[in-house]
Amino acid sequence: MGWVFDEDTRLEPTEPGRWKVEVSDRWNIGAAPNGGFLMSMLVRASAELSPHPHPLTVTAHFLGRTEPGAASVEAAVVKPGRSFSTVEASLVQDGRIRVRMLGTFGDLDRQSGPTRIVARRPDPGPELVSSSLNTAAVPFAERVELQMPPEQAAGALGTPTGIARMVGKARFADGRPPDLVSLALFADAFPPTVFQLGHYTWIPTIELTVHFRAKPAPGWLWCDFRTRFLIDGLMEEDGEIWDETGRPVALSRQLARVPG
Amino acid sequence: MGWVFDEDTRLEPTEPGRWKVEVSDRWNIGAAPNGGFLMSMLVRASAELSPHPHPLTVTAHFLGRTEPGAASVEAAVVKPGRSFSTVEASLVQDGRIRVRMLGTFGDLDRQSGPTRIVARRPDPGPELVSSSLNTAAVPFAERVELQMPPEQAAGALGTPTGIARMVGKARFADGRPPDLVSLALFADAFPPTVFQLGHYTWIPTIELTVHFRAKPAPGWLWCDFRTRFLIDGLMEEDGEIWDETGRPVALSRQLARVPG
Repeated sequence: MGWVFDEDTRLEPTEPGRWKVEVSDRWNIGAAPNGGFLMSMLVRASAELSPHPHPLTVTAHFLGRTEPGAASVEAAVVKPGRSFSTVEASLVQDGRIRVRMLGTFGDLDRQSGPTRIVARRPDPGPELVSSSLNTAAVPFAERVELQMPPEQAAGALGTPTGIARMVGKARFADGRPPDLVSLALFADAFPPTVFQLGHYTWIPTIELTVHFRAKPAPGWLWCDFRTRFLIDGLMEEDGEIWDETGRPVALSRQLARVPG
Repeated sequence: MGWVFDEDTRLEPTEPGRWKVEVSDRWNIGAAPNGGFLMSMLVRASAELSPHPHPLTVTAHFLGRTEPGAASVEAAVVKPGRSFSTVEASLVQDGRIRVRMLGTFGDLDRQSGPTRIVARRPDPGPELVSSSLNTAAVPFAERVELQMPPEQAAGALGTPTGIARMVGKARFADGRPPDLVSLALFADAFPPTVFQLGHYTWIPTIELTVHFRAKPAPGWLWCDFRTRFLIDGLMEEDGEIWDETGRPVALSRQLARVPG
């Protein structure tokens, strides 16, 4: 038995640039698979096809709801380059594109140039509690372990803090170490920031972009998600993901709809 | 005579979803057209095709250098939807894709839902000076007027401030009011933040994502661009654009390469 994430993002090749997948319901938020989980499958397929091994920047647009069950992934190299390659991919179900992705891949091991970081790993404070989401309604919560400050954990469940921010730690519940592909999942793993403003509803992601900045070390991922601009029911959610050793490993931003 | 931006982003339809364009050298930074300018053309083409009029979130990947001169734009609706439509577009030159774009369009006039903004318009301080870039080397500087604090203007020209941030105001030099399409241009209009760290070199954009949050009012755009994570020669540049009336109108983020 391998890790659940690897089982559930397994790609079965059917022809060049095309794979059969079985969208598991084990990563559902309610009735729908988590968007970052779906994105991870597209990143994995694209990495198989790309002449360059590592995602650097990937954008997924969510066109329609994906249902658990049979689906296919299609990917194509838009342009293979010397330093970078651009790839696009789609998750297709019942003949309809549900997720469309465009990404540029490179090789982080050979990437060189200046480094200067003027930010610190998010500090969720000394006292962290495990989120206690109902795993019957949110199977995803059985797959990904989240720890956060008590007031934010309470805020995710009905007592909003009033600040559209979620800070905490995340890891696979089964002990699988994080890697580049799974950072797309972790970029969408926390409850929506606007739960902390009392908007307890389904917050559909329109688009999610992840910048993959370094391979994460084993251990917890330290995460910070915040929303500063909720305008007419559209919000950005900006994320930072750092690894256990204190290195920034991903930046994310999504545009999502807040009904109401 | 119309505005230069409209002349230079004019699309001549040749067949459905295909336009002839003439890439002007009037928006060049050195020998290459500004990336935001190229992106504007793709946004304009996509908006013509999309059942929904306004770009909401658009991502452009820059695959290779576009030369001034003849080119074509191709666009296709990936999925028309009820609230949103997803469109992809390419800038093609000499049979090769130079820029690939994926975007979701909607209707900002009909967008409704909660609003909550917890940020303020960037304050570049009381004393602003016009940037005095050499317009022979940077024709773009004749098209777009930038104002910024004196130390940042000096930093863009050789005396780095040491802080990877550019804050200031921008507008078309010929008086054209900003609109949604042109926000893609303004998202890439300031000198690279890393000039302020002394990296005075060509900083190629790999990918630029713009969230279009509101139609800008006539007048100056107030802009703030910053970089927090320069790692192994890759940096993000995060932008905020506000309009003259104090409304946030766009968020941008790009991934760019810093040689060295």
